[in-house]
Amino acid sequence: MNRRVIAFLLGHILLLEAAVMTPALVISLVMKELAAAHAFGWTIAITAAVGIGLTFVRPTSKVFHAAEGFIVTALSWIGISLFGALPFWFSGAVPNYIDCFFETVSGFTTTGASILTDVEALPYGLLYWRSFTHWLGGMGVLVFLLAVVSVSKGAGYSLHLLRAESPGPDVGKMTPKLKQSAKILYIIYICLTIIEIILLLAGGMPVFDSVCTAFGTAGTGGFGIKNDSMAGYSHYIQTVVTIFMALFGVNFNLYFLLLIRSWRAILHDEELWGYVGIMVGSMVLITINIAPVFQYNWGEAFHQSAFQVSSVMTTTGFCTIDYNTWPQFSRSLLAILMVIGASAGSTGGGVKVARLIIVFKLLRKELVRMLHPRAVHAVRISGKTVDNKVGKGVSVFMAAYFAVFTVSFLLVSIDNMSLETNVTAVVSCLSNIGPGLDVVGPAGNFSQFSNFSKLILSADMLFGRLEFFPMILLFSPSLWRRRSL
Amino acid sequence: MNRRVIAFLLGHILLLEAAVMTPALVISLVMKELAAAHAFGWTIAITAAVGIGLTFVRPTSKVFHAAEGFIVTALSWIGISLFGALPFWFSGAVPNYIDCFFETVSGFTTTGASILTDVEALPYGLLYWRSFTHWLGGMGVLVFLLAVVSVSKGAGYSLHLLRAESPGPDVGKMTPKLKQSAKILYIIYICLTIIEIILLLAGGMPVFDSVCTAFGTAGTGGFGIKNDSMAGYSHYIQTVVTIFMALFGVNFNLYFLLLIRSWRAILHDEELWGYVGIMVGSMVLITINIAPVFQYNWGEAFHQSAFQVSSVMTTTGFCTIDYNTWPQFSRSLLAILMVIGASAGSTGGGVKVARLIIVFKLLRKELVRMLHPRAVHAVRISGKTVDNKVGKGVSVFMAAYFAVFTVSFLLVSIDNMSLETNVTAVVSCLSNIGPGLDVVGPAGNFSQFSNFSKLILSADMLFGRLEFFPMILLFSPSLWRRRSL
Repeated sequence: MNRRVIAFLLGHILLLEAAVMTPALVISLVMKELAAAHAFGWTIAITAAVGIGLTFVRPTSKVFHAAEGFIVTALSWIGISLFGALPFWFSGAVPNYIDCFFETVSGFTTTGASILTDVEALPYGLLYWRSFTHWLGGMGVLVFLLAVVSVSKGAGYSLHLLRAESPGPDVGKMTPKLKQSAKILYIIYICLTIIEIILLLAGGMPVFDSVCTAFGTAGTGGFGIKNDSMAGYSHYIQTVVTIFMALFGVNFNLYFLLLIRSWRAILHDEELWGYVGIMVGSMVLITINIAPVFQYNWGEAFHQSAFQVSSVMTTTGFCTIDYNTWPQFSRSLLAILMVIGASAGSTGGGVKVARLIIVFKLLRKELVRMLHPRAVHAVRISGKTVDNKVGKGVSVFMAAYFAVFTVSFLLVSIDNMSLETNVTAVVSCLSNIGPGLDVVGPAGNFSQFSNFSKLILSADMLFGRLEFFPMILLFSPSLWRRRSL
Repeated sequence: MNRRVIAFLLGHILLLEAAVMTPALVISLVMKELAAAHAFGWTIAITAAVGIGLTFVRPTSKVFHAAEGFIVTALSWIGISLFGALPFWFSGAVPNYIDCFFETVSGFTTTGASILTDVEALPYGLLYWRSFTHWLGGMGVLVFLLAVVSVSKGAGYSLHLLRAESPGPDVGKMTPKLKQSAKILYIIYICLTIIEIILLLAGGMPVFDSVCTAFGTAGTGGFGIKNDSMAGYSHYIQTVVTIFMALFGVNFNLYFLLLIRSWRAILHDEELWGYVGIMVGSMVLITINIAPVFQYNWGEAFHQSAFQVSSVMTTTGFCTIDYNTWPQFSRSLLAILMVIGASAGSTGGGVKVARLIIVFKLLRKELVRMLHPRAVHAVRISGKTVDNKVGKGVSVFMAAYFAVFTVSFLLVSIDNMSLETNVTAVVSCLSNIGPGLDVVGPAGNFSQFSNFSKLILSADMLFGRLEFFPMILLFSPSLWRRRSL
């Protein structure tokens, strides 16, 4: 294990965090929020100091394999969460540091699960920072580092870091140069965010609300700045958010293909059609199911159904209504969408539609093989053959998901909440959604869990966001024993 | 598709069913239960007539591939359930035929889920038949056919039938001759059942109760003949049942190894140790968790914990107490044990410990491969190398489990019961356990579901018992189109 290069890269990540925290300090100063300004000032100073200290550790070896990539990724995400939690703590806004850590992990992993019972009581600086963590975490902090800083000259950092941090079964290579890919991804991301801000402003939303809401949508995070999430905003604003949540749940490679007008490739993308099909189908089914709740006002039923489906399937977690009170069929369908999640290569979480399609095709292939033992039948997704490695990777992902789910579910049960709360809290954190059902439903929050459960659920959010392997490897003793791989 | 051979074998299965139903007719006559006696008489006559009719369809071709094996298995199980349900209906004991079908599927699949609210009101003949379906379904009806009848001379029926019906990722070949294997399996099964009956009689249990309880235990089914399941019996009887449930959850190959004194092979059986480890560990954890419920009477807490763990993990479903009232940690652990299930090659259901071990080892292998991309690391279970085919089979099984779970869960939700009820009802049927939690908990039953949901759950029990493929293939249109494979 090349510890020096890990420390060196961690230092850069912390310096980056100190830099992107500065606008929050400025907002606090402008709004004359003294406690928050002090908190941000100290946090920036400490984070920068530790960051500079670590960058002095010059790598003596250029060794950088997959293992180093996984470890840097896992440690970076834990590191930025530990430091990013400090402003909440220093300002006194959240007295328990574990709560601060939970909230920050929830921000960076774009989960949106909260321990706050009164969001509106937070100063503007903290509200901004809380929403910004979604935006940064959505596309990935290491991708951001690769896009803006040139730490990777010559060394093979980029590929392993990008692989370890990117969601989905396969990172489609957009361009041969990874640095360029990272830049294009971020440019698309920034443009979409700006378009959403403009559309929200057009609906009469205040500037601060628009920026924070766009951050929460872009990262498919779901932290709101109002206690009732998005319920208080106009139908126009809710509709804009519905559409943009769905857009940020699409694989970003498709936007790149759109830019280079590669229509054929877009039309033949099976995941896109799967994603759109599941989403629209669920919206229609839920509309029919909840129509009686809205006295057969079909327009309103569809509006509410569309918002909640878009929010849950992209694992954003905004809500406009307490769907805990809906008929069980709709609640079950939402629970299933939670697990499915958005597209690979998007900012959304969950198992991902691409994995679902691969699993479904492998299942069909296996059935055909049982009938025709000697038939050769390759699995193809969007015209490309899926090799054994991808298929195995998906199976292993599913196994890891259910293994981590089982252990977490059991440990969280010690708090003696309902089975519905425990199951959906763990799934919600593993899939980076935010709300679950019952106690952690859209009208509730995670504050009732013990500190122990909050740590378990924080770990689950990181497991889910980094798709298990970086985090699992972090706990592998054999990894640390070796000097170099 | 060789339809003639399928019809021919189905005929034999129905004749077999008519034959094994005779003791129930005798019991009804002896107990002077006229309605039940009439019902059994008519059912035997109809079943035998249809069976004889089908055996007249002489196969013109000897073609018998995996596909035929799967289809015979699926159709046999559906057929014996359709005919086996008739006595309940004809006697008027259960007025709704769908309820009768549900109860019979539940019997043969050794699930033990019931729609009856008052079991004790059933006549003895029906009680006997209900428990006997567990015993026959436990080891498998086709295995029984192979063991007692010589329909398979020359043709390659045996292997494909045994494969399609046997639970677990791999059928260990005990002896080179399959017919002999089937016979040995049934001899062990009968001996263990007789030993249990003797031990129950020694505890003062009436003969009829002993036989029915032993049938329920041997098939790890769980139909009781009392409204309070096993709660009313003495601690001695409950302890005998605890031990025998655990014994019937062990791979029967191990009893064969025991007979030929192959100690080494038994000691090196990883699934056995996994099974025992999970079972004892869960018993201890639940004892600690529920001790306060029993005012720290540790003996009683362990007794209750052991019975419930043994019952749930082997997917039997007997109970001595309403564990719905236990702390959430114990309930969660029981829910997890439901999914894990018993050993491969036992009469128990669930995912099976062997699959869990394979998945766990594949996961570990994949992690190692990520660190050392060029390392060669074979997965070994009990000293034997697991080839890619087994690994893939396990992944496909898990995918099928969750696909069927998702669809069933959604459809059952239409009845608007609680999420806890729906999730555990589907898992309980898919894993062939019996009780779930909440409405379908140990103190409740499945009578509150709609007819539609009862059919879905009946299908789930068959999906679970036959491990998905026979049933999924049955719905595959391409299978039926072909004349011969």
